[in-house]
Amino acid sequence: MTRKPKPTPKPELGSEERGRFAYDALDRTIHERARLGIMASLAAHADGLLFPDLRRLCNLTDGNLNRHLQVLQEAGLVEVLKEGQGRTSQSTSRLTRRGRAELAAYVEALERVVQDAAAARQALDGAHVAQRSASPRPGWST
Amino acid sequence: MTRKPKPTPKPELGSEERGRFAYDALDRTIHERARLGIMASLAAHADGLLFPDLRRLCNLTDGNLNRHLQVLQEAGLVEVLKEGQGRTSQSTSRLTRRGRAELAAYVEALERVVQDAAAARQALDGAHVAQRSASPRPGWST
Repeated sequence: MTRKPKPTPKPELGSEERGRFAYDALDRTIHERARLGIMASLAAHADGLLFPDLRRLCNLTDGNLNRHLQVLQEAGLVEVLKEGQGRTSQSTSRLTRRGRAELAAYVEALERVVQDAAAARQALDGAHVAQRSASPRPGWST
Repeated sequence: MTRKPKPTPKPELGSEERGRFAYDALDRTIHERARLGIMASLAAHADGLLFPDLRRLCNLTDGNLNRHLQVLQEAGLVEVLKEGQGRTSQSTSRLTRRGRAELAAYVEALERVVQDAAAARQALDGAHVAQRSASPRPGWST
């Protein structure tokens, strides 16, 4: 059996590092969409939010909000203060110092995603201008 | 039993709409971190990417990349072109027109998250300046 030479990678790939688009800095605890909403709500209300207000802002059910708050508390990102007992009890949630720091790091990683997308769009626009009169590549459905 | 009056909401909450931080526009198909990496990789390579290159850029295993590509294909966001057979076959993935449009909408929603976080941080900085000499609130662990 003859060994065929492997296809050479495209030039631009050689300059890109492994995991360039792995986005490891997007912490999964915060990245989950409902939890991201909770974190953003609490960031916008430094004094904390009562449970019903947080539920309303994030459009979550009691059960979902409780479950996600539990995850965020266990990760040390959110603290919950319970006041009163029984029917008159209230629980107020707010970000911990660590929660604020990790949200800031997360948002920094998000900014990179936004920048990557903007750069890709700009490159695509440039390519469209350059290839406007070129024939379409065969084999693609669109 | 006497009915206690309900606590009145804080002023700023009255002006915020329900679901203000629900971030429904963060499409869950794209939001999953590995898939976001795949979408961003493909957006940056308009001609498509060979499977090994995509795997390297996203730092995924064969199995994970296959699974996520399947989800993205089923959602109509990515198309995969297979060329050749057996050991010499190659598969190239790229975004569909719909994939590009949905990624753009997703990134627009991300930008809102980034703006929300920036506004929250600005407000917090302002509050810190105003309350620098105030005593800490009781009951919080931090």
